[in-house]
Amino acid sequence: MELGYLGPEGSYSHEAAVYYHGEAKLIPMYSFYEIIKSVEGGKIDGGILPIENSTEGAVTSVMDWLLNIDKSKIVGEYILPIHHNLVSLGKELKEIKYIYSHPQAIEQCRESLRLSMPKVVFIPCESTSLACKLAREKGIGYGAIANEKAKEIYKMNLLKSNIQDNPLNKTRFIIISSKISNNCKSCKTSIAFTFTGDRPGALYEVLREFAVENINLTRIESRPAKMEIGQYIFFIDLIGNPNNNIVRNVLERIGDMTAFLKILGTYPIHRT
Amino acid sequence: MELGYLGPEGSYSHEAAVYYHGEAKLIPMYSFYEIIKSVEGGKIDGGILPIENSTEGAVTSVMDWLLNIDKSKIVGEYILPIHHNLVSLGKELKEIKYIYSHPQAIEQCRESLRLSMPKVVFIPCESTSLACKLAREKGIGYGAIANEKAKEIYKMNLLKSNIQDNPLNKTRFIIISSKISNNCKSCKTSIAFTFTGDRPGALYEVLREFAVENINLTRIESRPAKMEIGQYIFFIDLIGNPNNNIVRNVLERIGDMTAFLKILGTYPIHRT
Repeated sequence: MELGYLGPEGSYSHEAAVYYHGEAKLIPMYSFYEIIKSVEGGKIDGGILPIENSTEGAVTSVMDWLLNIDKSKIVGEYILPIHHNLVSLGKELKEIKYIYSHPQAIEQCRESLRLSMPKVVFIPCESTSLACKLAREKGIGYGAIANEKAKEIYKMNLLKSNIQDNPLNKTRFIIISSKISNNCKSCKTSIAFTFTGDRPGALYEVLREFAVENINLTRIESRPAKMEIGQYIFFIDLIGNPNNNIVRNVLERIGDMTAFLKILGTYPIHRT
Repeated sequence: MELGYLGPEGSYSHEAAVYYHGEAKLIPMYSFYEIIKSVEGGKIDGGILPIENSTEGAVTSVMDWLLNIDKSKIVGEYILPIHHNLVSLGKELKEIKYIYSHPQAIEQCRESLRLSMPKVVFIPCESTSLACKLAREKGIGYGAIANEKAKEIYKMNLLKSNIQDNPLNKTRFIIISSKISNNCKSCKTSIAFTFTGDRPGALYEVLREFAVENINLTRIESRPAKMEIGQYIFFIDLIGNPNNNIVRNVLERIGDMTAFLKILGTYPIHRT
């Protein structure tokens, strides 16, 4: 199996890919868009994408791209504990004036670094591993927020470990593939839907359908429908499989209540 | 009145501040955090902050900071139509290799620019006006995504106008102040709440309270509770004023159902 991830090697996506499927051939890619396009186009079997983080929230660009997948579905999830480190070619914390990292990693450490290094300037870049590469090229005075593995790959010094604001910081990844199987025992199903016009109260009616059938929801998110303020697309993860009659009937009723309903995939729950 | 905004002059926050309160003394500030801290500390009367965009969604860092306001409340809102332009010191679109802008502005134009300039590299920075300053310093080959006003202030050439993916692109701003008045006629009230433990189904019970009293909701958003995956803080905007008995009773019942309920403010609805 060929599995695309946001590279280069040493990124958190790489770490999650190794844990999720150690025997897959892992293909580093430049962007989420490239991963999704390659899976949809049949160039690779699957791709792993971050979807939400317990500190920073939804990875909104991935959620928006998911609405456009056509040939592929979500076939799995993996929850990775995130431990951020401040690394540098230099050896002294006080030398650091600039810190490179992915915008989400910067947000996840902002409070803790604001207290310990109030004057430091953050420079966003495409990935935590690219941050190491850039900080290495620039040399002393430059740091990167990265994981344990990137530190080794880029031969950097560890200046400060576990710098994330939230000690329980975790990222949930999804795996998309065009090789779809609903044969899981303990399943989660991800859906997205929207309503005609400006009817936020309509969400209540959808949630009632799940509540009366005792279907548990593990996630509710809203994204703008790219139209007027106040028009949203809702993303829900539910425990269950549309192979089950009760779940299928609920989804059919929701299909009738919504302007658009997309089943993004059914996959085994990752229990941590 | 002194009103803080995310500067420098020429930013979208500046534009919204001018429209919201043309006679206020407008104070450019470096970060959302500085604005909120200055309002809370009584250094300035108020601050204007972007809270959601119709393409990109919630401005998550502002939402997270709002949970910590103590002496101030939301006292107003302003909805600004967003027209992005690509500007440069150079005159030819084909010369542009790098584009500076605020990360949200980049996301709002990504699709349209990916189609017309597939090889361009985006460089995120703190604001759209800073993007103009940087692109001006770097010269030919560098562009910035910015509004009409920033183009004039930094004396740049307009290479492409209305480059946002969504022609209806709008940003909703809120105004926070410690000078609080609930004396609006047509009001919106913003609240935030969370539940004990992992109970996403509990949201249904809260929405039912609003539904049975016919209280309209204009926004529902979730943010991670900075704890485990699956634990959320919900943000709701409702039409109404807690001075009204029905609204007050509903909020009291929701207070009993939730682990934490914060009334972020009551303010006049901005109709566009």
